[in-house]
Amino acid sequence: MTHEDFMREAIALSFQNMEAGHGGPFGAVVVKDGEIIARGFNQVTSCCDPTAHAEMVAIRQAAASLQRFDLSGCVIYTSTEPCPMCLSAIYWAHLDAIYYANSREDAAAIGFDDLMLYREVCLDVSQRSMPMRRVLQDEAMSAFQAWQDKVDKVAY
Amino acid sequence: MTHEDFMREAIALSFQNMEAGHGGPFGAVVVKDGEIIARGFNQVTSCCDPTAHAEMVAIRQAAASLQRFDLSGCVIYTSTEPCPMCLSAIYWAHLDAIYYANSREDAAAIGFDDLMLYREVCLDVSQRSMPMRRVLQDEAMSAFQAWQDKVDKVAY
Repeated sequence: MTHEDFMREAIALSFQNMEAGHGGPFGAVVVKDGEIIARGFNQVTSCCDPTAHAEMVAIRQAAASLQRFDLSGCVIYTSTEPCPMCLSAIYWAHLDAIYYANSREDAAAIGFDDLMLYREVCLDVSQRSMPMRRVLQDEAMSAFQAWQDKVDKVAY
Repeated sequence: MTHEDFMREAIALSFQNMEAGHGGPFGAVVVKDGEIIARGFNQVTSCCDPTAHAEMVAIRQAAASLQRFDLSGCVIYTSTEPCPMCLSAIYWAHLDAIYYANSREDAAAIGFDDLMLYREVCLDVSQRSMPMRRVLQDEAMSAFQAWQDKVDKVAY
């Protein structure tokens, strides 16, 4: 199968599940060794889960399927450029590459705020529209010190 | 309960679950009308889920509990400044505010790549360390057009 074949599957998922009323027009597949090991589609509204973007669903399913939190050796095909949430999840999962079709500008043009989100994420904490306030930093630091001292931790 | 009380609960979650071996030293609570409605802690390694950061777990639980994908009226207390994935999820969920204790620099100092991730997310697609390639943009666009034409869509 070619890049185009895998992307067609992601696009088909975006169509089918939008038509079925599951959520926005977004689909994704995770591929390992030339085979699709996970499929995702947007389920934000139908599952009452604001994190259930196509890529997130596909990554969680791939990790569960492989029983690994590290998806090195896999790539993702997504019908739209990942938003900062999904892009970050792709980094945390250590996927090898991203193939995408629609861009963040295309998404913004049909009402999805990916462009705004990229702007906000890159602002300094004090400049964001989201109020952010720091409290109890001394108490929280002790958990970090305990992590550093922990001898049996599973790092990632 | 005060901001400090809610944050102490988030920090306690970070401690307890790190000690129990569930994942990294991170905890979060979602609060609505002065009450904790959801608790989250990092479960990346124990659940084989690279997206299972404390904030993500808490947001998903809060949304499931309220049966709403829009968490307007809620705030989140997290023991560490959200990474770009969690920060974006907080925006998508329309939480009102973020209270945090440890910073991204503190997280980087104990081996979590939040700083690197903030840098990567803010780079142009072509400059990132993650290979990204665009394919089939014309075919994917038709799903976006179908979304615009869909009369019974649930926007978010």
